[in-house]
Amino acid sequence: MVFSLPKRLFSCSSLLRNRAIIYTSNGPVTQALSIITYQPLPPPPPNTINIKFILAPINPADLNTIEGVYPSKPSLSSNLSSSGKGSKDEPVFVAGNEGLAEVVDVGEGVSGLEKGTWVVMDKPQVGTWATSRNVGVKDVIRLPFGKLNGLSEAHGATMTVNPTTAYNMLDSFIQLSEGDWIIQNGANSAVGKLVIQIAKIRGLKTINFVRSRDNLSELVKELEKLGATKVLTYDDLYDKSIRGKVKEWTGGKDIRLALNCVGGEPAAAIAKLLGSNAHLVSYGAMSKKPLSLPTSLFIFKNLTSHGFWQTRWSKENSRHKKAALIGTLAEWMTQGKLKAPDHENLTIFRHDSDEEATQKVRETLRRVAEGKVGKKVLFKLEDVNA
Amino acid sequence: MVFSLPKRLFSCSSLLRNRAIIYTSNGPVTQALSIITYQPLPPPPPNTINIKFILAPINPADLNTIEGVYPSKPSLSSNLSSSGKGSKDEPVFVAGNEGLAEVVDVGEGVSGLEKGTWVVMDKPQVGTWATSRNVGVKDVIRLPFGKLNGLSEAHGATMTVNPTTAYNMLDSFIQLSEGDWIIQNGANSAVGKLVIQIAKIRGLKTINFVRSRDNLSELVKELEKLGATKVLTYDDLYDKSIRGKVKEWTGGKDIRLALNCVGGEPAAAIAKLLGSNAHLVSYGAMSKKPLSLPTSLFIFKNLTSHGFWQTRWSKENSRHKKAALIGTLAEWMTQGKLKAPDHENLTIFRHDSDEEATQKVRETLRRVAEGKVGKKVLFKLEDVNA
Repeated sequence: MVFSLPKRLFSCSSLLRNRAIIYTSNGPVTQALSIITYQPLPPPPPNTINIKFILAPINPADLNTIEGVYPSKPSLSSNLSSSGKGSKDEPVFVAGNEGLAEVVDVGEGVSGLEKGTWVVMDKPQVGTWATSRNVGVKDVIRLPFGKLNGLSEAHGATMTVNPTTAYNMLDSFIQLSEGDWIIQNGANSAVGKLVIQIAKIRGLKTINFVRSRDNLSELVKELEKLGATKVLTYDDLYDKSIRGKVKEWTGGKDIRLALNCVGGEPAAAIAKLLGSNAHLVSYGAMSKKPLSLPTSLFIFKNLTSHGFWQTRWSKENSRHKKAALIGTLAEWMTQGKLKAPDHENLTIFRHDSDEEATQKVRETLRRVAEGKVGKKVLFKLEDVNA
Repeated sequence: MVFSLPKRLFSCSSLLRNRAIIYTSNGPVTQALSIITYQPLPPPPPNTINIKFILAPINPADLNTIEGVYPSKPSLSSNLSSSGKGSKDEPVFVAGNEGLAEVVDVGEGVSGLEKGTWVVMDKPQVGTWATSRNVGVKDVIRLPFGKLNGLSEAHGATMTVNPTTAYNMLDSFIQLSEGDWIIQNGANSAVGKLVIQIAKIRGLKTINFVRSRDNLSELVKELEKLGATKVLTYDDLYDKSIRGKVKEWTGGKDIRLALNCVGGEPAAAIAKLLGSNAHLVSYGAMSKKPLSLPTSLFIFKNLTSHGFWQTRWSKENSRHKKAALIGTLAEWMTQGKLKAPDHENLTIFRHDSDEEATQKVRETLRRVAEGKVGKKVLFKLEDVNA
């Protein structure tokens, strides 16, 4: 027989200090954010768990949240330190909304979650840009597949915002059957690419519009490889011949769902390609222009215009339904049917001082804010030696 | 015993010739329309009735229909004459969509409709600008109240387009309870005034916006007399203080229904006053500007934008439901709870020649098209001596 040490001895969570990317008041990311180091977490109180973040992405909405212009606000954290920033006297906001974490300790009364379980966040704005946090059992959703089953860390870390948005927009507004067509603009956005992939899984055909660019043929190839039925530019969209082309492709079948993350003319133009009783679902406004549509589309063609916000969906749906959705997405990911986004990890190393780490974080977020990073950036925060 | 002649002898419908306002191809109302005189109707075939129009309004959509730019198209009539215009060889479009008629003769197999019954049109674009027409029993809905019960001809003639639109917009998109608030622009439109009155009957509060004008205080008094809770101008609407005022009036209760017949800024501004999970329903675009709304209202406040078109509602709902609605509206009208629109009757006299009558019709429609008639104009066409 092999002699095995009690697992508890190998847990080092209590031996290492933690780090978090925090802010105390809203402002530009290059000024508001800093990194603090704080003491190891105490054992979790009843019905809570201590989790250690593996990877946590920078989403565009995180920047708006830190700037204070996002409708979903984090609560102040006062349990990081016994004194100074993050303490009861000086509570802080821990940044980050999405992330993959591993359970490192469970409190009394917790069932269904054990040490080593991978979890994603259910509660919005938990503050995922940190090493370890103590959270309620209902703040997380257990992943059915762990790393052993081939789900990558990047998959797990980017599961609760974009893939859920893509899935639910295809599912919530209209009953689509195999062979039905949908149309979208901003098709090369993170969500747009997931829409293409999930539509393909469901047997739906997609007409995808993107901005014209130098390397257009590469992008078209990439989207087609993901499963896009048609990929065109906004120049094609505004051309009079588009109506005839679409009719030819669909065999005259009405398109009844359009997904919009751009606004302005690229939104109006896809709405005009829809048939009667169709739904236009907006989840972004990258052009920063309003959604401007002819009233006649609403009156005579019975267009309905909706918005989709995963945060609201999450609030309005049961944990059971959310866990089932996460399960479905995780399965598709392990089957290779849903790609993880192109990404780069930004590691905050153990040996980085708080000052160095703060500069690194601010500089990265500045580049993201300026749109200079084509890939999804994921934070990997290392614990700090005690 | 009193000797009574068989009623049939007193029917003079077969002794007088008919007239209709017709067009043979789409064009401007001042050129396309003319009046023709045609032979008396033969007795109605089985399951049809002969009706005689009492009054028929000019609605804005009639002008668009004649111009050929309205989505609801009439069919050609080929049963007016045995030769010439309106015959099988030269079918014509009879203009007019709405109207009040009296049954003058019933075919075999018709039940529930007798001579003297007042009916309104169920089928769109029947061609109501005429003296007598032969129609199917399902083309009409019987009015439960006749003239003896105090329903005026003007009420009956203007029942199936505007009052139904107002009623259904308050009924179809959201469950409103007594004390709830709604908001509308173009509040002095025909539909807007009906919305005010029906809201009052239902115990709903209304915030009503109108264009500023010289006789504003008169208009405000008129709308308040109809039951408007608040009447303001678009200048008030664009003023920053409006948010606070509305909150004070509603006691902070969310407004969840906005009705829009203007588009452009007056539509966006009322949408911004709505609470979460609200519905913006558009039934017109008097400003001719598109419906332009911030995407954030859709995403973060879950605004849904719909259109309402009574023609579609009518197509999608059962005859039973439509008859019940007409019954409810007629009852409110006889109770004095719903006013007939301000109107003037335009009589085409028996002694007017076709040429004179044609000039009269064209001239009236020109004035309506130019917005020079403040009142609803209702056609009263007299039969012509045989």
